[in-house]
Amino acid sequence: MFIVMKAGAGESEINLVSERIQQLGFHAEILDNGNRTSFEIINSIGSSDASLFENLAGVAEIVRVAKPYKLVSNFARSEKTIIKIGDSEIGGEELTIIGGVCAVENEEQVFSVAGTVKKSGAKFFRGGAFKPRTSPYAFQGLGEKGLKILAEVRARFDLHIVSEALDNEQIDLVEKYADVIQIGTRNMQNFSLLKRAGKSKLPVLLKRGMSATLEEFLLAAEYVMAEGNENVILCERGIRTFTDHSRNTLDLSIVPAIQKVSHLPIIVDPSHGTGKNYLVAPMARASVAAGADGLLIEIHPQPEKALSDGTQALLPEQYLVLVEQMRAIHQVLLPTRITEALS
Amino acid sequence: MFIVMKAGAGESEINLVSERIQQLGFHAEILDNGNRTSFEIINSIGSSDASLFENLAGVAEIVRVAKPYKLVSNFARSEKTIIKIGDSEIGGEELTIIGGVCAVENEEQVFSVAGTVKKSGAKFFRGGAFKPRTSPYAFQGLGEKGLKILAEVRARFDLHIVSEALDNEQIDLVEKYADVIQIGTRNMQNFSLLKRAGKSKLPVLLKRGMSATLEEFLLAAEYVMAEGNENVILCERGIRTFTDHSRNTLDLSIVPAIQKVSHLPIIVDPSHGTGKNYLVAPMARASVAAGADGLLIEIHPQPEKALSDGTQALLPEQYLVLVEQMRAIHQVLLPTRITEALS
Amino acid sequence: MFIVMKAGAGESEINLVSERIQQLGFHAEILDNGNRTSFEIINSIGSSDASLFENLAGVAEIVRVAKPYKLVSNFARSEKTIIKIGDSEIGGEELTIIGGVCAVENEEQVFSVAGTVKKSGAKFFRGGAFKPRTSPYAFQGLGEKGLKILAEVRARFDLHIVSEALDNEQIDLVEKYADVIQIGTRNMQNFSLLKRAGKSKLPVLLKRGMSATLEEFLLAAEYVMAEGNENVILCERGIRTFTDHSRNTLDLSIVPAIQKVSHLPIIVDPSHGTGKNYLVAPMARASVAAGADGLLIEIHPQPEKALSDGTQALLPEQYLVLVEQMRAIHQVLLPTRITEALS
Amino acid sequence: MFIVMKAGAGESEINLVSERIQQLGFHAEILDNGNRTSFEIINSIGSSDASLFENLAGVAEIVRVAKPYKLVSNFARSEKTIIKIGDSEIGGEELTIIGGVCAVENEEQVFSVAGTVKKSGAKFFRGGAFKPRTSPYAFQGLGEKGLKILAEVRARFDLHIVSEALDNEQIDLVEKYADVIQIGTRNMQNFSLLKRAGKSKLPVLLKRGMSATLEEFLLAAEYVMAEGNENVILCERGIRTFTDHSRNTLDLSIVPAIQKVSHLPIIVDPSHGTGKNYLVAPMARASVAAGADGLLIEIHPQPEKALSDGTQALLPEQYLVLVEQMRAIHQVLLPTRITEALS
Repeated sequence: MFIVMKAGAGESEINLVSERIQQLGFHAEILDNGNRTSFEIINSIGSSDASLFENLAGVAEIVRVAKPYKLVSNFARSEKTIIKIGDSEIGGEELTIIGGVCAVENEEQVFSVAGTVKKSGAKFFRGGAFKPRTSPYAFQGLGEKGLKILAEVRARFDLHIVSEALDNEQIDLVEKYADVIQIGTRNMQNFSLLKRAGKSKLPVLLKRGMSATLEEFLLAAEYVMAEGNENVILCERGIRTFTDHSRNTLDLSIVPAIQKVSHLPIIVDPSHGTGKNYLVAPMARASVAAGADGLLIEIHPQPEKALSDGTQALLPEQYLVLVEQMRAIHQVLLPTRITEALS
Repeated sequence: MFIVMKAGAGESEINLVSERIQQLGFHAEILDNGNRTSFEIINSIGSSDASLFENLAGVAEIVRVAKPYKLVSNFARSEKTIIKIGDSEIGGEELTIIGGVCAVENEEQVFSVAGTVKKSGAKFFRGGAFKPRTSPYAFQGLGEKGLKILAEVRARFDLHIVSEALDNEQIDLVEKYADVIQIGTRNMQNFSLLKRAGKSKLPVLLKRGMSATLEEFLLAAEYVMAEGNENVILCERGIRTFTDHSRNTLDLSIVPAIQKVSHLPIIVDPSHGTGKNYLVAPMARASVAAGADGLLIEIHPQPEKALSDGTQALLPEQYLVLVEQMRAIHQVLLPTRITEALS
Repeated sequence: MFIVMKAGAGESEINLVSERIQQLGFHAEILDNGNRTSFEIINSIGSSDASLFENLAGVAEIVRVAKPYKLVSNFARSEKTIIKIGDSEIGGEELTIIGGVCAVENEEQVFSVAGTVKKSGAKFFRGGAFKPRTSPYAFQGLGEKGLKILAEVRARFDLHIVSEALDNEQIDLVEKYADVIQIGTRNMQNFSLLKRAGKSKLPVLLKRGMSATLEEFLLAAEYVMAEGNENVILCERGIRTFTDHSRNTLDLSIVPAIQKVSHLPIIVDPSHGTGKNYLVAPMARASVAAGADGLLIEIHPQPEKALSDGTQALLPEQYLVLVEQMRAIHQVLLPTRITEALS
Repeated sequence: MFIVMKAGAGESEINLVSERIQQLGFHAEILDNGNRTSFEIINSIGSSDASLFENLAGVAEIVRVAKPYKLVSNFARSEKTIIKIGDSEIGGEELTIIGGVCAVENEEQVFSVAGTVKKSGAKFFRGGAFKPRTSPYAFQGLGEKGLKILAEVRARFDLHIVSEALDNEQIDLVEKYADVIQIGTRNMQNFSLLKRAGKSKLPVLLKRGMSATLEEFLLAAEYVMAEGNENVILCERGIRTFTDHSRNTLDLSIVPAIQKVSHLPIIVDPSHGTGKNYLVAPMARASVAAGADGLLIEIHPQPEKALSDGTQALLPEQYLVLVEQMRAIHQVLLPTRITEALS
C-alpha cells in the first residue's frame, strides 16, 4: 500500500503518518521525490486499515496494491481447484452441466426433467425446495418435502443434487438430502450463512450478488474457505444494470477475470441471467466460448405451467440441442483451456 | 393486469388464454378492437402468476397495473404511520435524528459520542455490535459485549438504541438490549431474517439494498409487516452505480417516491450513502429538504482512529452545526409537509 | 396504447380523456370492467403523445404496446439485411471480421497490421484518423493524413476501410477515402451527425452508446434509415456499469435481443468492450457463440508502444489464433443460424 | 504516477521500464523496498501515457495520482468563478434560478411562462428551439423561429436567454439570439461541438452526460476552456441507473464533489433529472440544500398540452411556491457557503 502525501505537506504531517504506521505495527519505506513524500507499507493491509490513514492531515491519496483476499487467490494455490463429487468433477477438463428446475413442484415435473437431464449426459440436477421470492405472497417452495423428491431423483437417475439453502436451519436439511449447497444471489453477503456453509462437508455453489464486484464476490467465497471448506464453485448469474431487454445483464467477462486471479471453478447460469427463454441458448453457448467451467440451466416440460420463472425455462428438446452445441464449442476450446491453464 | 394478444392471433390461441384464465380461477373482461384482442384480469395477480401467460402462443405482452405490495401501501392505510418509541416518535412532525457510531469499539468512544448526540437534542443512538464486513478478516464487532455498552448508553443518557442484527440469533440479543432492530443493506432480501423481525415486538429499521428497486424495497418491508410487525422504518443509504466520486449514489428521489405510495416513514443515512466526511453535511441537509422523516448520522470523536468507516464519520462539532442547519431547513418545509400529507 | 383510469375515476375525468383522444385525432375502444375504465388507442402513437395523457386527472397508468421504431423493425422488413461492400457481405452467412488499429499512427504500424488482417482472411480494415478522446490533451488522430494512409491500405491489401467521423465535415472526408463510416459511442445520440450519415451513400457502422437501451440504440439507427440510408451495421461495445474488472461490461445478450426485433446486422467490439488484452479473446469467442454477425478487433504489432488504447490490442499472433477459433465456433452454429433465421 | 513492479520482477524487466521512462522524456524516482521495485514518475502524465507502461513485462500496476484536468481545477484558479451576464451573476452569493420551458412551442406559451419567471424574481429564461429527441419522429423544435420568440422574451421581460445548440451551425444561431449556449446531455462528449463552444463569447451551460463520471464531466468542460472560453456553468441532470421510480437518478452528491475540486459553478436540473412533476419540488429544494449555485426548472401553463416532457413541468403556482422555499433554504445555508468557500 502506498500513502501519497500532498505536494506541500509539512514535516509535522509527515511525522504523524510515520507514527501512525508504527503504532499499527506496520513497516514502511519512505520515498521523497523532492516534491512530495510517499510511504510504501510493506505488510499486507486490509481496506479497513487503509482507511485509518485517509483522514490524516496532508495525506493526498491511499493506494492499495495488494488484494484483500487470500485463500481464493492464485497466490495461495497455483493449480486450479477440481471439486470431486462422487465420480464427477467440477473445474476439470469436462464441461459441467447442471440441468434442473427452478422450483421443485411435484414428482411428475421433477422426474420428467431429471430424465431429460440424464439423457443429455449431464451429471448434476438442480432443484429448489426453498425459494427466495421478492414477494411474501409468492410460492416459497415445498421445503423438506421438496428435498425428499430430490433425494429420490438421486436414487433413481444417479444424478448429484444441487439445492439452495436460505438460512442455517435449511443448510442442515440440504446437507441431509443433497450433494451441493447453493447460496443464492440475495445471500451472497449473508455472512452468517457463509460461515455456516464454510463448516459443511458439502461443496458450496455460490452465486454472485446482483451488484457485487469481482472483489466482493471473491471475498464472499473467502468467508466460506476461511471456515475450512475448500470446495467453492462460483456462479455468474447476471448483474443489475439500466438495460431492459433482459432481466439481468450476464457479465461473461467475469469468467476469464476470475480465472486470472483465482483457482476456483466458475460456472454460469444463463437462465436467471437473462430471464427469457429465447436468450438462454445464445448466452449458454457464449458462456462456454468465454471459458466457463460449467452451466446451470433450467428446464421445464411445460414452462407455461411453471409455478416460478417459467418464462426462462427451456423445453426439453431445446435443452438437448443446446447441450450438443455447448459440447461442440467446448471441444473447440479444449487446446486453449489447456494452454491457458499452464500459462 | 392486461394480456395483450398479437395482432394476428388466431381463435385457438385466444381460446387457450381464456382457458388458462379460468383454470387459475381468475375472471377477465375481453376487449376486441377489431384488430387485436386483449384481456383485462380483474383479480389482483402477482408477477409469478403473470408469467404464467407469457409463453402462451399469440400473447404479445403482459401488462401489470396493480402493485404487488399490500400492507405497506397507502391503499391499506391512508394516514402516515407514526412509530412510538418511549416518548419519542418517528414519522411525525418532528425531524428524527439518530446519531451514533458505526461500530461499538469501547465505552469511552461510545459515551463520548452519546454525549454529543444528547447535546444535539436527538433522541436515538445507533451503534453496531455485529458488523457485516465484506472481508472475513475485518473487525466483526464486539457482539453481546457491545450491546451491553449500548444498554448502558440508554441508562445513562436516556437515548433509544438502534442496533443491527445479521441473523436470527442476533435478533434475540438485540431484542434484549436495544429499542430498534436494524436490518442492513446486504440483508434486505434475507427473507428468513425479515420473517423473524416480523415476529419481533421492536420496530425494524430496514435499509434499502444496494441495487433494490422501490418495489423490491417495499416488498421487503411487506415481509416484515406480513408477520404482524407494523413498525417498519425505511432507510435510503445509497445505491450502486458507475460513479466514483462517492462510495454509493444517494438516491434522494426515493424519499418523495416512497411517500407517494406508502404510509411508512423513510429516513436517510448520508454517512454510508456517501462514504466521505465532506459529503455528509450537504447530503444530510438535502435529505431534509427532500422531505425525509429523519437522518442516521455517524459521529466519531477521533475519526482517524476508527476501527471501521472512519472516513465518513463527522466530528462532534461538525455534527452539532449540521443538526442546527437541518432543523432550520425542516422548519422551512413544515407547512409543505402538512399540506402534502393532507393531499 | 392503453390508458388505464384509476379505480374511482369519475365521469368527468373519463370524459376529459375521451375528448383529448378526439382532439388529437386518435380513435379508441373503451373497456369498462365494472370497476375501472380503460381506453385502447388503436392508432400508432409515440411516447411524446403518450405523455399528453399522463397528467390528466383520474389517469392511473399509460401503457405503450407498439414499439416507437419502424424502419429498423422486423415488421418493416422480414428478411435480414445483408450489406454488400464490393465483393464482401455483412449480415450474411459468413462471419465478418474487421481487424485493425485503434488510431492510425503511421504507415509502418498500419501496413504491418493490415498484413496480419489480410493473412487472417478478413476483408475489412478499421483505423481511426479522428479520435474522440476524453481529454483535450490526448492524441486526437492524424486527420486527413491518416485517411490517406488508410486509402493506401485499401489499394495495397484489397481490404475495405472502416473509419470514424466525429462531425459533418469529417463525414465528407471519410466518404472520400473509406468504405464504411463509423459513428462512435459518444455520438450515438448526436442527431445532427446521424442525419448527415443518413444522407451518405456509404454504409454506417453505429456503435451503441455507453448507457443506451435497446430501444434508444434502434432509434438512433432509425435516424439514419429515416434519411434514406438503409445500410446500418449495429455494434455492441460494452455498457457502463458498476463493475471494475473490465473497462465496460460487454452486454452480449443484446445480440439475440436485436436479432429478435430487427433485420439489421449486429457485430461486437470486444476490444473496447473489455479494455484489457486478456479479456479480448474469450469475449470475442463468446460473441460468435451468441450469434453475432461479426467482430471488430484491434491489433497492434507492439501494443506497448501504442499512442492510444494499447492495453487492449491483440498481438498479431494472438489475433491469428483467435480468428481460427471464432471460425470453428461459427461453424458449430451455422445450422442454428439458418434455422433461427427462418423461424 | 506510480509504476509498481511485480514482487518477482527481474532486472531486465526493471531496466525496460526505466528505458521507456527515459524514451518518453519523463523523470522518475526509484523505490526498492527489498521485495518489490516501484517508480514514481514526477512529471504530470495523462492516462494515455500511463497505459504505455501497462503491457510491459513485470509491471503489476499503474497508479495515477495527478488529475488529468487542469484549467477547470482549483489548482489553476483558487477563487470561485463568477459568471457575469448583463447585471446578473452565476456562481456568486445569490441563488441562480433559470425558469423556462422545455421546447418553445409558440408565443403564447412562452410569454405566459416568461411572465411567471419574471414574477418569481428569476433573471434567466430557458427555452429549446432545437430539441434532441430519441425518436426521429418526435417534435424537433421550431428552429430559428423559436429563437426569435426567445429574443422577444428578452426584450419584453428583461430576462437572459439560455438555449441549446446541437451542432456548430446551431451555435451560430444561438449566439445571434441568446445569452447562454446550452450543450445537452447527449452531446457532453461531442468534442467538435465543445471546441466550437469554446470559441464562443457566450457562456456555456454544460449538462452532465447520462453516464459521465465526475472526471469525464470536468474534462468536457476542459475542452471548452482549452479553447479560451472561461465561462462554463456545469449542470447535473440525473444519471442512468437501474432504478425505475424516476426517469433518471439525480446525483446531488456531485454538487459538493465538484465544488471541492473545481472553481466552476454548478447548477441542477431537477425537471429532467426526475421526469415527474411530483418529484421536482422536493429535489429542487434538496439541490439548494446540497449547495448548488442554481436551478434550471421547467414550467408549463398547461402541462397536459405540452409537446414534449409535459409530465415533468411545474404549474406556474407550484413554481412560485417552490422559489420561495428554495430562497428560504438558501438563506439558511448562506453562512456555510461563505465559510466553505474560504476553507
